[in-house]
Amino acid sequence: MKLKLKIAAAAFVMSLVACSQPITKDYKDASLSIDERVEALLPKLSLEEKVAQMRIFHANIGVEHDENGNLKLSKKVIEKLKLGIAGIKNPGEHIDAIAAAKLNNELQRYIIENNRWGIPALFVTESYNGVDAAGCTKFGRPIASAASFNPELVQRQWDVVGREARLRGMHMCHSPEADLVRDPRFGRMSEAFGEDTYLTTQMVTNAIKGVQGNYEGLGNGTHIGAVAKHFAGYGQVLGGSNFAAIEISPRTLIDEIYPPFEAAIKEAKTLGIMASHGDINGVASHGNPELLTGVLRDDWGFEGYVVSDSNDIARLFYFMNVAESPEAAAQMGLEAGIDIDLYAEDSYAYLPEMVKKNPELEKLIDRSVRRVLRTKFILGLFDNPYINLDEVKKGVRAVSSLELAKESDLESIILLKNENDVLPLAKNKSIKVALLGPLLKENTQELFKSVTGESIEYLAEKGFQLTDEKVGAPKLLDRDGAALDKLENMAKKADLSILFLGGDEFTSKEAFFNNALGDRATIDPVGAQDELLERIKALGKPVIVVLKHRRTLSINTIADQADAILDTWDLSEFGDQSTARIIFGEVSPSGKLPVTVPRSIGQLPFHYSMKEINYKKGYLFLEDGPIYPFGYGLSYTKFRYSDIKISNTEITPNSELEVSVLVTNEGDIKAKEVVQMYIKDKIGSVTRPDKELKGFKKIELAPGESRTVKFKITHKMLEFTGLKMEKILEPGDYIVKIGTSSQEYLETTFKLKN
Amino acid sequence: MKLKLKIAAAAFVMSLVACSQPITKDYKDASLSIDERVEALLPKLSLEEKVAQMRIFHANIGVEHDENGNLKLSKKVIEKLKLGIAGIKNPGEHIDAIAAAKLNNELQRYIIENNRWGIPALFVTESYNGVDAAGCTKFGRPIASAASFNPELVQRQWDVVGREARLRGMHMCHSPEADLVRDPRFGRMSEAFGEDTYLTTQMVTNAIKGVQGNYEGLGNGTHIGAVAKHFAGYGQVLGGSNFAAIEISPRTLIDEIYPPFEAAIKEAKTLGIMASHGDINGVASHGNPELLTGVLRDDWGFEGYVVSDSNDIARLFYFMNVAESPEAAAQMGLEAGIDIDLYAEDSYAYLPEMVKKNPELEKLIDRSVRRVLRTKFILGLFDNPYINLDEVKKGVRAVSSLELAKESDLESIILLKNENDVLPLAKNKSIKVALLGPLLKENTQELFKSVTGESIEYLAEKGFQLTDEKVGAPKLLDRDGAALDKLENMAKKADLSILFLGGDEFTSKEAFFNNALGDRATIDPVGAQDELLERIKALGKPVIVVLKHRRTLSINTIADQADAILDTWDLSEFGDQSTARIIFGEVSPSGKLPVTVPRSIGQLPFHYSMKEINYKKGYLFLEDGPIYPFGYGLSYTKFRYSDIKISNTEITPNSELEVSVLVTNEGDIKAKEVVQMYIKDKIGSVTRPDKELKGFKKIELAPGESRTVKFKITHKMLEFTGLKMEKILEPGDYIVKIGTSSQEYLETTFKLKN
Repeated sequence: MKLKLKIAAAAFVMSLVACSQPITKDYKDASLSIDERVEALLPKLSLEEKVAQMRIFHANIGVEHDENGNLKLSKKVIEKLKLGIAGIKNPGEHIDAIAAAKLNNELQRYIIENNRWGIPALFVTESYNGVDAAGCTKFGRPIASAASFNPELVQRQWDVVGREARLRGMHMCHSPEADLVRDPRFGRMSEAFGEDTYLTTQMVTNAIKGVQGNYEGLGNGTHIGAVAKHFAGYGQVLGGSNFAAIEISPRTLIDEIYPPFEAAIKEAKTLGIMASHGDINGVASHGNPELLTGVLRDDWGFEGYVVSDSNDIARLFYFMNVAESPEAAAQMGLEAGIDIDLYAEDSYAYLPEMVKKNPELEKLIDRSVRRVLRTKFILGLFDNPYINLDEVKKGVRAVSSLELAKESDLESIILLKNENDVLPLAKNKSIKVALLGPLLKENTQELFKSVTGESIEYLAEKGFQLTDEKVGAPKLLDRDGAALDKLENMAKKADLSILFLGGDEFTSKEAFFNNALGDRATIDPVGAQDELLERIKALGKPVIVVLKHRRTLSINTIADQADAILDTWDLSEFGDQSTARIIFGEVSPSGKLPVTVPRSIGQLPFHYSMKEINYKKGYLFLEDGPIYPFGYGLSYTKFRYSDIKISNTEITPNSELEVSVLVTNEGDIKAKEVVQMYIKDKIGSVTRPDKELKGFKKIELAPGESRTVKFKITHKMLEFTGLKMEKILEPGDYIVKIGTSSQEYLETTFKLKN
Repeated sequence: MKLKLKIAAAAFVMSLVACSQPITKDYKDASLSIDERVEALLPKLSLEEKVAQMRIFHANIGVEHDENGNLKLSKKVIEKLKLGIAGIKNPGEHIDAIAAAKLNNELQRYIIENNRWGIPALFVTESYNGVDAAGCTKFGRPIASAASFNPELVQRQWDVVGREARLRGMHMCHSPEADLVRDPRFGRMSEAFGEDTYLTTQMVTNAIKGVQGNYEGLGNGTHIGAVAKHFAGYGQVLGGSNFAAIEISPRTLIDEIYPPFEAAIKEAKTLGIMASHGDINGVASHGNPELLTGVLRDDWGFEGYVVSDSNDIARLFYFMNVAESPEAAAQMGLEAGIDIDLYAEDSYAYLPEMVKKNPELEKLIDRSVRRVLRTKFILGLFDNPYINLDEVKKGVRAVSSLELAKESDLESIILLKNENDVLPLAKNKSIKVALLGPLLKENTQELFKSVTGESIEYLAEKGFQLTDEKVGAPKLLDRDGAALDKLENMAKKADLSILFLGGDEFTSKEAFFNNALGDRATIDPVGAQDELLERIKALGKPVIVVLKHRRTLSINTIADQADAILDTWDLSEFGDQSTARIIFGEVSPSGKLPVTVPRSIGQLPFHYSMKEINYKKGYLFLEDGPIYPFGYGLSYTKFRYSDIKISNTEITPNSELEVSVLVTNEGDIKAKEVVQMYIKDKIGSVTRPDKELKGFKKIELAPGESRTVKFKITHKMLEFTGLKMEKILEPGDYIVKIGTSSQEYLETTFKLKN
C-alpha cells in the first residue's frame, strides 16, 4: 500500500512539472491499452525526439554524484537528455543499492522533467551473476548455474537479480546469454550456459522468467526486462576469437543455435534481444533483416526491441566493412530491424539528417520508437518511474538471497574424481589440512573454518599468482621455484592438501578492442600448476584439487594425479565456504558438466551432440574421447539405474510417450542426482547428432530410497530441419537413453510413425 | 604406323570373337559421333549389363598373374566380368610398366571377349605424385608442387603421369585433389595443393590438362582421364578428422571451395568427378542431387561421370545413416547423380532387382551408363583398347621425366630462414658436414656426395625413428637418450650439421576405417626433434634444418634455433639430391609456402585469406600472426619491388586493368621469384576476405636484371556471391597488392564502377 501511495505522489510531482510543457492527456492515461498509449504519444514526437528514443549512452560519460550523493550531470549528458533518451547504461553502478536508487530517482526525474513529453528512460545493467553493480548479491556465473542442472534454482536466482536491479532503479538488463559456448578458447565462456541447446534453452528461459518476474513482475514494478543475447551465433566465432567471423551451416544454425532464442521469445517473453557482433553466411548480424526481422519478428512473433551490441551499428562501417559510411551503417541497422543504437555517437545520431534526404526512413524510425515506448509502458515507467527508497534496504542482499547463492553453489559443484572415496572428509577428526595454490583467496581459510570449526587445523598459502594483474594485456608470470618449494614444504606438514587450481580472471575474459585480450589459443592450465600438483602428489598424501576457472581446461595431469577433483567453475561470493561444505560432507555434490572436457585443444570442435560421423575416427597418438563427458558428475553415494520402460514402442504426431527408469540410492548418504534423457535418431534424411539431451530431472533420494523418474517424449523433441529446410517429423527408429551422463545410460527404442 | 596395325589386328580378333554374339555394327563404327555410338549401343544392353557399366571393382579381389606374367583371374572376377564392367582399379599395380601393360592387354582382351557387346573396361589408378604403381616416375607430392607456384611445371609433371599411366594400360586416374587443405590436422594434407582457392585452381587445371594431354591426348590414346575429387568440401572436415562432418556457410562453399572444381570442368575438361565422403549442410554429398546434378551439370555443364568414393554409396546406409537400407542408399546415389559405384558389393548391385519394383529407375541408370560409355568412346577404347608394348619401355621413366622430377624439386624447395646468409654452402671448401636426424634416408649421404664430390666430408646418422612402423595404429617411440648423445657427438666432430626433421609417413596419412589413424590433434613436431636441434645448436656451429613432412608443423623451436631452414615437404624420388643442390648453391630456392604456418594448433582455423574481421583480436600469451605466412619464401639473392603502376584507376564490367611492378635482382646470383598479386575489397555488402591471391608469375632474373611484371585485373577476379546468393560485381574501392608474399607487398588502389 505504501508503495502505491508513493507512486501516486511521484506521478503527481511529474504532472506538476510537466505543466510547463504542452501536455497531451491521452498517453498518460493508464486506463488505455499500451498500444493506444504508444500511438497517442508517437505522433507528438519530433523526428529528433524519436531518434533520441533509439539511443542508449553509458553513464560513464557524465552521470555522477557529489559527495552527498546528489546527482551531478556533465554538459554532454545534459545536452543529450534535452530530447529524451531511450536509456542509460549503468547509472550508479559503483555505489550501493540505496545510493543508486536515490541517484537513479533523481536522474529519472531530471530526464522526465527535461524532455517535452516527460518520457522516462530505461536504466540498463548487466547481470550474468547478479546485478553488475556494487552491493548486490553475487551468484555463481551462468556456466556454474548450468552445472546445477536445476532450472528452478536458476529462476529463483534471476528473480533475486530482477528484484535487486529494479530496487536500485534499473529497468532492463543486457542478459542472459542465449549463446552456446562450444569453444573453450572463447574468453566469455563462463557468461553462457554451456554447449548444449536443450540445457541452455532451459536455463535461459528460466533466467528470463526469473528476472522479469514471470513477465507480471514488469508491470508490477518489481522486476526488470531481459535482453537475450547475442542473436545469433556469437558463441560460434571462429577460433573462439571475439569479433571473428562465424562459419556455420544453415541447418546447424536453425536446429542448434536458434532454439534458446526462440524459447526466450515465445516461452519466456523476453523484452529485448541484442544482436551479435559477428556475421552469418557473410551477412553482418547487425545489418541482417532476414535474421532480425524475418526470423525474430515474422517467424517467432517477437514484439520487443532489438538493441545493438556496443557501437556495433557504427562498426558496420568501421569494423565489419559492410557499409560505405556511418550513415550507410545507420540505414543498414535501421532497415535490418535494430531499434536501439548502443553507445555510438555517429550512427543513429545521423538519422534526422538522413530522413531529410529519404523521408521513407521515418516509417522505420516509427517502427523502432514504438517498440521502445511500448517497453517503457510495459515496465510502468510512465506511471511509476521512481523507486520507493524504503523498499531498497530490505530487498537487496536479503538473507534469503544470500542463502540462495549458497544453495546454488552447493548444486553447482561437480565431483569429477573421488579415488578411494577420499571425499567427504570427516569434520571431527583432528587433522591438518593445507590449503594451497594460486586460486586460493585471502578469506578461504576463514571460510573453511566457518564450516569445520576448530577440529581441523589449516595451513594456507597461495604461493604464486598466475598472471600479473594488468588488465588489458596480462602477462603470464614466470615459474617461481621458491614458491613451489614453500608450498611443498607446507604440504609436508599437513595430513592432506587441497589445491586451488584453474585459471584466474585474466586468463579468461571478454576480449575488447585495443590491447584487451581474453581468448586463448590453448586450454592447458597456465603456469606451474601441474608441477605443483605433481610435487605435492609425490609426497604420498591425499591431494584434493578444487578447480576454479572460467573456461574449460584440458586437465589431463589433474585428472591423472589428483585423488579427488571438485570442479567449481566460478561460484558465488560464498564459493569457498560452499566448497568446504561439500568437502566435509554436509552435502553430496550433484553438479554435472555443462560442457565436454577435451584432452587437447586439437580435438576441437568437440561437443557431445556432434553428428555421429564425427566420432568415427580418432587422432594419432591420442586417447579417444574427452577427459570427462558432458553431463558427467559423481556423487558421495551410488545411484543405480534400472528398469527402463517405455509406454509404447510407437509415437505418432498426435501422441506422446512416457519413458521411465528406476533410480536407487544404494549408498548411505542423502544425495541429489541429475537424471538425463538423450534421444538419438538412428537414420535421418540428413546427418544427425549422435544424441541430444531432451530432458533432465534433478531428484533427491534418501539412503536406500528408489524412485521412478518419468519423462515425456513429445514429437516436438523429434523435429529437425529436413532436406527442404523445413521442420519435419521423420518416421523411423529412435533410441532413448536415460542415465547419469551422456556416456552412461540405459536405453530402449521406439518408432515414429506418421 | 605400327601402332595402328596392331589396333586393326586387335579389332579383327575382337570382331571374330564377337561373331558368336549378336552383333550390331553401328556402335563400332568409328566414323559415327560419340553420341551416336553411345545411343546405338545402350539399347542393346540388358539391365544387368547396364548396371555392370556402373561398377568398379578393385583388382585385389583376383586379377593376378602367374610366374610368367600371364593373366590369372579369380572365380569372383570371372563371374563379375561376364556382364562387362565399368572399370577395374589398379590392375597390375605391383608390377613394372611393361609387365603391367602386358597384363592389362590380356585383361582387357578377356573382358572384351567375355561380354556380349565387347565393351572394354576402364583401368583406373591414382596419381598424386606419379602413377601409383611400380616402376613409374615419382614426383613430389601435390603440396610440394604447389610450393613451386609454377603451374606449367605441374602440367608437364602430370603429362608424364598421363603418358606413363596410359602406357601401362591405365585409362583414368582418381586424381587430382581439388580440395582446399586448411587444417593441418588432416592426414591427407599433402595430397592437395594447399589452402588457397586461386593457387589450387591453377594447379588442378594444369594437372588435369597435363594428365589428359590437353584433352586431345585422350582420343590419341596417349593420356588418361582425370577424376577431380572430392566434390565438395572434403578438405573442410571438422577437426581435420577424416570422415567427419563439414560445417561451412553456403557463401564460403561457393566462393572458396567450388572454384577449383568449376575450373576443372569448364577449363580443363576433366572426364570425371569423385564425390566427397562428407556432408554439406547435413546432406550427404553422395546423396545430394543439388550438388551432383544441380551444380555440376545444370550450372557448370559437366558431361563426364561422377564416381563414388570407396564404398560410399553403401555407406549412406552403413556409415552416414541417411539411408534406411543399402537399396535405399543405391537409389539415393543414383538419383543424386552418381554414375559409378566404387567397390561396394551391396549397393548398385541391387539396381536390377530395384528396377523390377520401380521401372522409372531405368531412366536414371541409362543416364549414368551413357556417361560411362561416352567416356570409353572418348578414350578410344572401343577402337583402340590395347597398349603397344614396344612403346612402353621408352615411354616410362624416360630420362626427360626423371629430369623433370628433379627440376620440379628445385622449384618446390622453400627457404624459410637464412640467418647471416649461412646458405648456400661452398662446394669447394673442405669441410665436414654432419647429416643427422630421423628423416635422413639410407642414401642421403650418397646423394649429397653426388652433388658435392669428394671435397666435403660427410658423417651421416639417422639416430632415431619417430614412430614404430606398424601401419594402421603407429605408436610414437620413446625418447632415445643414447641416440641423442650419439648425434650430438657426431655434430661435435663436424663443422656444421644438417638436421633432417619433420614427420615420417606414419605421422600424417589418410585415416581409413578400423584402426588406421592418420589425423593428428596437434601439429607440434613429434618426439625429441626439438631437443635434438637445441642440443646441436648449443654446440655453437651452424645448424641447417631440412624439413620433410606431409602436414604443416608448428615449427616454433626450429624457426627460433636453426640458422637456415629448407622446407621440402615431400619431394620426388630424387629429393635429397635436389636438396643438396640447393644447399650447395647450384640453384637458388624459389618455392613459396602454399599454406600458412601457425604458431599453435590453437590458432586454427588460420589461412591468409580469412575475412578481415578474423584478424582483429589475438590470443592471450601468444604472439600474433603465423610463424611464416602464405606465399613466403626467401631466395639466395635479394629482389627489390618498386614502381607499382596501374593502367587506370577505374575498372568497369567491360574493361580490364593492367597493373605492373618492377622487380630487380639486387644480388649476384641468378634466381627465380614468384611475384604475387593479391586483391582486397575494401567494403563489401557481405564480410570479405582480408585479401585474395588473384595472380602470380614466376620469373627468373640474372644478377642486376630488372623486369616489369604485369598482371591483368579482370572483373571476374572481383566477383563474389552477394546478398542474394548470386555472383555480383560490386562497385567500390579495391586495393591491389603485389609482392613477394602475402605479407610483403607494394599496393595501389582502383575503383570498380558499374
